Amino acid sequence: MVGMRGAYGCCTNGGNSNESQQPPVGGGGGGVGVAGAAAVEIAALAVHKVSPPPAQSTASKMKARVKETFFPDDPFRSFKGQPLGVKWLMAVKYLFPILEWVPGYSFSLFKSDLVAGLTIASLAIPQGISYAKLASLPPIIGLYSSFVPPMVYAVLGSSRDLAVGPVSIASLIMGSMLRQAVSPSAEPLLFLQLAFTSTFFAGLVQASLGILRLGFIIDFMSKATLVGFMAGAAIIVSLQQLKALLGIVHFTTEMGLVPVMASVIHHTNEWSWQTILMGAFFLVLLLLARHVSMKWPKLFWISACAPLACVIISTLLVFLFKGQKHGISIIGQLKCGLNRPSWDKLLFDPTYLGLTVKTGLITGIISLTEGVAVGRTFASLKDYQVDGNKEMMAIGLMNIVGSCTSCYVTTGAFSRSAVNHNAGCKTAMSNVIMALTVMVTLLFLMPLFVYTPNVVLGAIIIAAVIGLIDIPAVYHIWKMDKMDFLVCVCAFAGVIFISVQEGLAIAVGISIFRVLLQITRPKMMIQGNIKGTDIYRNLHQYKEAQRVPGFLILTVEAPINFANTNYLNERIKRWIEEESYTGNKQSELHFLILDLSAVPAIDTSGIAFLIDIKKQTEKRGLELILVNPTGEVMEKIQRANDAHDHFKSDCLYLTTGEAVASLSAFSKMITP
Amino acid sequence: MVGMRGAYGCCTNGGNSNESQQPPVGGGGGGVGVAGAAAVEIAALAVHKVSPPPAQSTASKMKARVKETFFPDDPFRSFKGQPLGVKWLMAVKYLFPILEWVPGYSFSLFKSDLVAGLTIASLAIPQGISYAKLASLPPIIGLYSSFVPPMVYAVLGSSRDLAVGPVSIASLIMGSMLRQAVSPSAEPLLFLQLAFTSTFFAGLVQASLGILRLGFIIDFMSKATLVGFMAGAAIIVSLQQLKALLGIVHFTTEMGLVPVMASVIHHTNEWSWQTILMGAFFLVLLLLARHVSMKWPKLFWISACAPLACVIISTLLVFLFKGQKHGISIIGQLKCGLNRPSWDKLLFDPTYLGLTVKTGLITGIISLTEGVAVGRTFASLKDYQVDGNKEMMAIGLMNIVGSCTSCYVTTGAFSRSAVNHNAGCKTAMSNVIMALTVMVTLLFLMPLFVYTPNVVLGAIIIAAVIGLIDIPAVYHIWKMDKMDFLVCVCAFAGVIFISVQEGLAIAVGISIFRVLLQITRPKMMIQGNIKGTDIYRNLHQYKEAQRVPGFLILTVEAPINFANTNYLNERIKRWIEEESYTGNKQSELHFLILDLSAVPAIDTSGIAFLIDIKKQTEKRGLELILVNPTGEVMEKIQRANDAHDHFKSDCLYLTTGEAVASLSAFSKMITP
Repeated sequence: MVGMRGAYGCCTNGGNSNESQQPPVGGGGGGVGVAGAAAVEIAALAVHKVSPPPAQSTASKMKARVKETFFPDDPFRSFKGQPLGVKWLMAVKYLFPILEWVPGYSFSLFKSDLVAGLTIASLAIPQGISYAKLASLPPIIGLYSSFVPPMVYAVLGSSRDLAVGPVSIASLIMGSMLRQAVSPSAEPLLFLQLAFTSTFFAGLVQASLGILRLGFIIDFMSKATLVGFMAGAAIIVSLQQLKALLGIVHFTTEMGLVPVMASVIHHTNEWSWQTILMGAFFLVLLLLARHVSMKWPKLFWISACAPLACVIISTLLVFLFKGQKHGISIIGQLKCGLNRPSWDKLLFDPTYLGLTVKTGLITGIISLTEGVAVGRTFASLKDYQVDGNKEMMAIGLMNIVGSCTSCYVTTGAFSRSAVNHNAGCKTAMSNVIMALTVMVTLLFLMPLFVYTPNVVLGAIIIAAVIGLIDIPAVYHIWKMDKMDFLVCVCAFAGVIFISVQEGLAIAVGISIFRVLLQITRPKMMIQGNIKGTDIYRNLHQYKEAQRVPGFLILTVEAPINFANTNYLNERIKRWIEEESYTGNKQSELHFLILDLSAVPAIDTSGIAFLIDIKKQTEKRGLELILVNPTGEVMEKIQRANDAHDHFKSDCLYLTTGEAVASLSAFSKMITP
Repeated sequence: MVGMRGAYGCCTNGGNSNESQQPPVGGGGGGVGVAGAAAVEIAALAVHKVSPPPAQSTASKMKARVKETFFPDDPFRSFKGQPLGVKWLMAVKYLFPILEWVPGYSFSLFKSDLVAGLTIASLAIPQGISYAKLASLPPIIGLYSSFVPPMVYAVLGSSRDLAVGPVSIASLIMGSMLRQAVSPSAEPLLFLQLAFTSTFFAGLVQASLGILRLGFIIDFMSKATLVGFMAGAAIIVSLQQLKALLGIVHFTTEMGLVPVMASVIHHTNEWSWQTILMGAFFLVLLLLARHVSMKWPKLFWISACAPLACVIISTLLVFLFKGQKHGISIIGQLKCGLNRPSWDKLLFDPTYLGLTVKTGLITGIISLTEGVAVGRTFASLKDYQVDGNKEMMAIGLMNIVGSCTSCYVTTGAFSRSAVNHNAGCKTAMSNVIMALTVMVTLLFLMPLFVYTPNVVLGAIIIAAVIGLIDIPAVYHIWKMDKMDFLVCVCAFAGVIFISVQEGLAIAVGISIFRVLLQITRPKMMIQGNIKGTDIYRNLHQYKEAQRVPGFLILTVEAPINFANTNYLNERIKRWIEEESYTGNKQSELHFLILDLSAVPAIDTSGIAFLIDIKKQTEKRGLELILVNPTGEVMEKIQRANDAHDHFKSDCLYLTTGEAVASLSAFSKMITP
């Protein structure tokens, strides 16, 4: 009798398909059809077979999986079928993207790049000096870092909009981590050595991630994490500027909100009104410029030139009124000259190796996240491709070269890249222009910075990082997803109250835990039939869906694996029991249908769970039906069948509709 | 024009449903139908609406999610609607499962329990002594631990088959972790204090996991991890027995395979042939008994009584031939008497607090995993319910009480529970019988163990743990899932080459990493139409499925979140590009259909990804269609629409079949 039914009975005659689509036969009453009529009905039912995927060897499956994991973008797909010479040329072009655009470079492109390059240089010079101070490094290191790395990036990088240089968050983290071990004022040379070594390791980490194609590591920092982290970091950075803005001399070396505010309040006697006045004036000026540029994007050059203008005006003011004698601290003498080699300063001493590796790892990953995200954003705006892993190699090499030429960690900065983009840059040439401008500054203009007050640098930093606090994004996250909002708030609170690194770690941990929880407690839904069709959908979501008497139709929406088999087992048991409680003879349960369409994978525990459920349902007189197992699941069901025929062909169906139609016709036939 | 199409156009007239199921209209040719005919066709198409789930407040959604996460089994569902008195009674019964079976306890049940209890006692006494030695504790602690905890469990536990007492792996881990800090021979009292304190923390961890309903933590130890871990631990335990079996006096305190083998080889001069002879004889005897019982399950009592028989015979042999004078080491004098209170020995000194908490945590979780798994296995065999979280509370309380009464960590042992089950136990009374037998031994029979040789204890441990090496399970895992096999091998190798704890951590880490990788690189499949139906399935799996010209139909089989949006984005771009390469005008792509049936959840990054894909497809002149978004996804799409109408009703369909039918009819109409 069982042989009559069965999903393996292939019947793809098109003429039958209309018949197969009819609404399922309700289990109610039972007196409607007689056995003979039901038998005719079964013959007319088109039941489709569940196929396993074509057999593949373990090796070829492994190869496919490795390819999907590490080469999802198939970077060499255009190489296929090309002659060897062309392949070589393509490989060189792949490694040096500069070769893509240099041959077709024209004067009109150059004009655009020149304007953009000069614009970002006017931002890069004051920001370079400021960010170096944020990292407790000599100001000139910030300018060195705006000279060599942009040149290297222009050769290796594939983004056309990225403006390379030091950035606020990486500077902040590097400074705070290194200060825990070495005082920059007591041992300036050692501190510098540690900074270069950390930069070297940051570059090594970045390039390795790219070469090993592990770029997806940075994907674990979600949007929500980044929004919270950036906002927290912006506040920490701004708090640090209170030293310069208030003219405090004895400032705390800690970073948290509480110690900094305590330090500010305890040193009211050191506040200098001249400094505060000057700081407030330039801060308002910069924020005003920012506001204007945001309101009228065409006036982007106002905020782009404002920092340099502030530096020039404030320097003149200090010079004219001898501000340094009225409590305004100034940068002081800076040496002229280009970057000196620093490979002899790399320090691989075991005492500090742990610290530099850790600092390199964290600053490397953070700055990589920023650089790659910025590159992708502008590539998507201008509709060209940026290969994440290749970008990582470029940024990594740039930092390795940087660490040997007196630069600290650099990446593509969001604010400067936006200015670069708005200023109409066309290629990475704008970075070269910027670097050359910085070079001219380094060679000839350094003495002009002697009287630049530190307070204006603080104002420049605050005006730059204020843009990292993205209130609309926070509101959007709150509206979309409360868990994401929690992650965001944890990152923010962790950064401002605990520490920058720990705040980040907590947020990443919560994000991953949330993903694991989704697997551990997967969604299971009861499905019902949408009247007049053979479509089955979630009863909770579709009010028009109706339970089919005699059937319990469940969907599982997650891979079935060790982390959730116990849960699924208990949950299904409970559902069956709740169904049995009703005690209504007419709606007595006969079939448990598990729709596996949304189960992408199953492991050994999962197969054991299916077998266990089958045994349990049999004990209760129910029949277990599996619907639409996907490739991997079907393959494993087959392998389980090799040992013992657990899942016969008559408990596998391609669609819920076919299963219900076929089974109700069959049960009508045997219980007329 | 667009308004004519649209999934929101609800049309659930049953009469149309047959029409709606017809095979999709192929995009080829184009000259067949004219616009007018197509318009008629559209009118006849039944297109179903995609509903969002009913609106719910954040609080009620949170409540539902918390309930699913922590109370998936809804333990109090039978309380509903009962009068208050009954509720109280049920609550007391819930907390003390003994009240469930004591009122109906009969003499025939007692007879069965008596036999089972005496049988497991004959195992528990020699194993208790042996496992205590494995943990470097005085042998009598092993007997104490077989007296109090089983009594406590009989009152609190809900499993009828669990035989409670010390187990090999927890003993091994406790011993090895505490020995790292304190030498059991130099400072025996301190070592004992640390053992009791660790047991206290183990109980605290176990009970807390149960009370906080965090029982799913132990689910993260997959079958594969456990198989590998158990096998590795069995080998480590057996290696430790080489000391007793070979009669070596100066044995290494390390656990790894390499140091133990080195120690064995370097101390060949200490090998004692009398010990080796005796050990080999009893080991063969025990393994033979085990073999007989496995072949003929009815003879289970042979292996159950063999250890006690070996102890008796070997003790007699030593006593008669004065073996202790021929290099055979013996247990020595043991004091008579029951457990003494030990709460004054609990040591919360900060010096050792970290160690005891860590030891408690690891042994607690490991022994919990064993106990709960054993309870579930036998509950499923006899078809009764074991509530995992309640079991954790019972085991936890049992260990807390144990730590105050000179017991170390105990749980339900697999081998003894199997014997208990085979001996026909009916209720937890068999544990009480066993405890009473141990009590008699403690009170009167201790002097008899003076001459028991250590070598026979070693043989008993080896014979017991050999069953933990489950070769058929390893083969099964290899056959089912290569990644699971890798996890299993890592756990095994980690345990025998690195350390027990680290091996476990590595295996759990790989298991979790694998789950994360499945999310980071979700499966995406191209779907095709199964001819003559409106069913769409994976092209790779179903050879009979055919591409629909003009459509790219993709399924995503994972939640769309921060961890995979970049991947999905790149992968979809590549697919569209590969499609465009073909350059065949006839099969030119017009629609990208994303089937979201298997996407259980989406986060902020995921919504941003959908919006981004929509923009990209628009740039390429494609239309993005979303099919069957599940409840949560639909809800978030709606919320995204609140701000900006990204996904209009005409790009949402309930099934791929309806989408293809409706869109091909429509495109035929506008391009006749």
